[in-house]
Amino acid sequence: MVEPYAAVDIIKAKRDKNVLTHDQIAWVVDAYTRGVVADEQMSALAMAILLNGMTDEEIVQWTNAMINSGERMDFSSLPRPTVDKHSTGGVGDKITLPLVPVVAACGGAVPQLSGRGLGHTGGTLDKMESIPGWRAQLSNEEMLAVLTDVGGVICAAGDGLAPADRKLYALRDVTGTVEAIPLIASSIMSKKIAEGVGGLVLDVKTGSGAFMSDPAMARKLAETMVRLGKDAGVNTRALITAMDVPLGMAVGNALEVAESVEVLAGGGPEDVIELTLILAREMLDLAGITDVDPAETLRDGRAMDAWRRMVAAQGGDPDAPLPGAREFTVVHAESDGIVTSMDAKAVGVAAWRLGAGRARKEDPVAPGAGITLRAKPGDVVHQGDALMTLYTDEAPRFALALEALEGAVSVGPVGSTIERLPLIIDRLT
Amino acid sequence: MVEPYAAVDIIKAKRDKNVLTHDQIAWVVDAYTRGVVADEQMSALAMAILLNGMTDEEIVQWTNAMINSGERMDFSSLPRPTVDKHSTGGVGDKITLPLVPVVAACGGAVPQLSGRGLGHTGGTLDKMESIPGWRAQLSNEEMLAVLTDVGGVICAAGDGLAPADRKLYALRDVTGTVEAIPLIASSIMSKKIAEGVGGLVLDVKTGSGAFMSDPAMARKLAETMVRLGKDAGVNTRALITAMDVPLGMAVGNALEVAESVEVLAGGGPEDVIELTLILAREMLDLAGITDVDPAETLRDGRAMDAWRRMVAAQGGDPDAPLPGAREFTVVHAESDGIVTSMDAKAVGVAAWRLGAGRARKEDPVAPGAGITLRAKPGDVVHQGDALMTLYTDEAPRFALALEALEGAVSVGPVGSTIERLPLIIDRLT
Repeated sequence: MVEPYAAVDIIKAKRDKNVLTHDQIAWVVDAYTRGVVADEQMSALAMAILLNGMTDEEIVQWTNAMINSGERMDFSSLPRPTVDKHSTGGVGDKITLPLVPVVAACGGAVPQLSGRGLGHTGGTLDKMESIPGWRAQLSNEEMLAVLTDVGGVICAAGDGLAPADRKLYALRDVTGTVEAIPLIASSIMSKKIAEGVGGLVLDVKTGSGAFMSDPAMARKLAETMVRLGKDAGVNTRALITAMDVPLGMAVGNALEVAESVEVLAGGGPEDVIELTLILAREMLDLAGITDVDPAETLRDGRAMDAWRRMVAAQGGDPDAPLPGAREFTVVHAESDGIVTSMDAKAVGVAAWRLGAGRARKEDPVAPGAGITLRAKPGDVVHQGDALMTLYTDEAPRFALALEALEGAVSVGPVGSTIERLPLIIDRLT
Repeated sequence: MVEPYAAVDIIKAKRDKNVLTHDQIAWVVDAYTRGVVADEQMSALAMAILLNGMTDEEIVQWTNAMINSGERMDFSSLPRPTVDKHSTGGVGDKITLPLVPVVAACGGAVPQLSGRGLGHTGGTLDKMESIPGWRAQLSNEEMLAVLTDVGGVICAAGDGLAPADRKLYALRDVTGTVEAIPLIASSIMSKKIAEGVGGLVLDVKTGSGAFMSDPAMARKLAETMVRLGKDAGVNTRALITAMDVPLGMAVGNALEVAESVEVLAGGGPEDVIELTLILAREMLDLAGITDVDPAETLRDGRAMDAWRRMVAAQGGDPDAPLPGAREFTVVHAESDGIVTSMDAKAVGVAAWRLGAGRARKEDPVAPGAGITLRAKPGDVVHQGDALMTLYTDEAPRFALALEALEGAVSVGPVGSTIERLPLIIDRLT
């Protein structure tokens, strides 16, 4: 095969701030997937894209090229309308776990193809895998069967979906080229568009614990993704939501599953319930399901029922005790007052160091490791009260976690201003 | 071995326009040489350096790190003062060939460790290898013996000299990261400083046929290299010289050797003689040799004698006929008038396409291929006069060369302004 381009010319074009053509983008993504463009060439191109940007049209073409590198799913045989959600990730963000069964219980079909966590934000699959027996890997046929039967499925994205993205994502991770809006947006949207759902709600997080800590960047990412979705015929909306403080009271894999089950049982922390219901309503609206109140499914047990069937369909035992950690330690308040702030990133890094997350793709996670918060901003505490409990399997990790938590929680006199973002910052349709 | 840094953090620092520390630079260059930093990481870093730049101090540290990746030569046992020249390369730039024997004949010692050509400018070793029997590869002991005996040697740089540079140069070539002043300057100067010479004259070319076609960039590169040399204790000067028009009348390997021998025999084109003598005087001045006129060595045969001994010492036969080409064709003037311009780059590309240069490192070159100019800017021509003769071993290459030459030569009415740069544009000490 005679290649129509040389990679070095495409790299130089982007380096020199030129706009890449449709054909150049289609070729370079395809040739990279085929191994004709080498890793060291793609990483130089990724750095040039990060520093010099891409036009809207280039981002659309790049996304299309990644979609075309693999298969497209087809859910047209399902009797229910398909709708999905994607979160850019945050500390304590277990929303997918209650959300999928809630929407399923309301009549939607949610094919939630998820990933594992890297860095300080957890991955949905890591959380689900703390359920004894549950398996993430499903064939397309198995996935369709669970989706048809329950109305929701959480599983690993198959190898056939946007393989260019998988290869490029691993490369970006080790070459300092993750933080580029064109590459982030096309990575997320290529997979979601290839999924072939009718509607998509994006939860773009901002604040210290988010991937996009700068709200202006988060908004730009959200706009870019909504445009990409609509261009591809997927009815797409985005919410920009707070990630300055952890979501809920639990951070860590089994700890977050337990909290999600509490929510499904009609309890659980207010912010987790609220964000679950807001996202559910957006999804149901996109699916054209307007006659059902998702809050009702939490009260009457239908969401819990969908959860139990979904877990069981993938070999999980919804009644089995979740794994715990071998060691714990409590962090106490040093003075009386009100908690004024709690840095999400610091809590995320601490949980990660306790064993809840992984530093490299091939590392295992400790299912029972993590943090349970005992107070959050706005709560009054007294000297000696528990602020949080840390869990790990290896006691020497406590020191590392405590180091990350240094200065992460502020306690001021009662009446002090509470510094935190509103839960829903913006909505883009 | 526990590594003190992660490559991705250093890439991110440069990506975010931070200044890298001495220790970060020393580590990343060393770790790349050891294979701990991967090619795809170094290429992303190189692109970030290209786009975000480096401070003077960073460039010094980067150069030092590359020097420290290998051995340093030691010429202190030589009875003569050592002095070297480096040209950034140009079309028809065969100056090293007459220059080394001229300076040797005047009492200097010139260890000219050279490279092969890539792209449209030729490499000194490729030219020398058109001499039957001549070999480029010498051991350090052989090199020192020729240098002691003759006063000059042209040979391949050994594998021990700045191995980090060799590895990085090959990477930059395929990743669009060649054109970065910090990387060009450190690449050239690391090898020259590791050579351990007392004095160094840089010939930084500018104009269409040069690597740095923009004079302002050429000046910046020259300043950077002079500073690097002086910082390392090498007495360094730079001339910025013209490369808008080819040097001399011959472009191609054997053709340029023949022209060099003409100069050594007391003839040859004026611009080649002039640049050879200007560079020789700079080198002799740096070497403290002030009582010899280099022009004299061309007239009295001492330079030719040094050339013949130097060629013979490396197995070459100075009396053997040089290889020719199987095919030739003549380009004629289309009208009467005066040649007003001749684009060096176009001539270089044409000679390259005729077989004088290589597209990939592993390609061979055709020793007899190239171009002989029959007129240059300022010469009056008549319709039908020969403007140039093209030589190749493969006739189908003529069409490719003629395509490159389209519009390369302008002929105007007698009295028209001649567009060309002065031979010596600037001098930096």
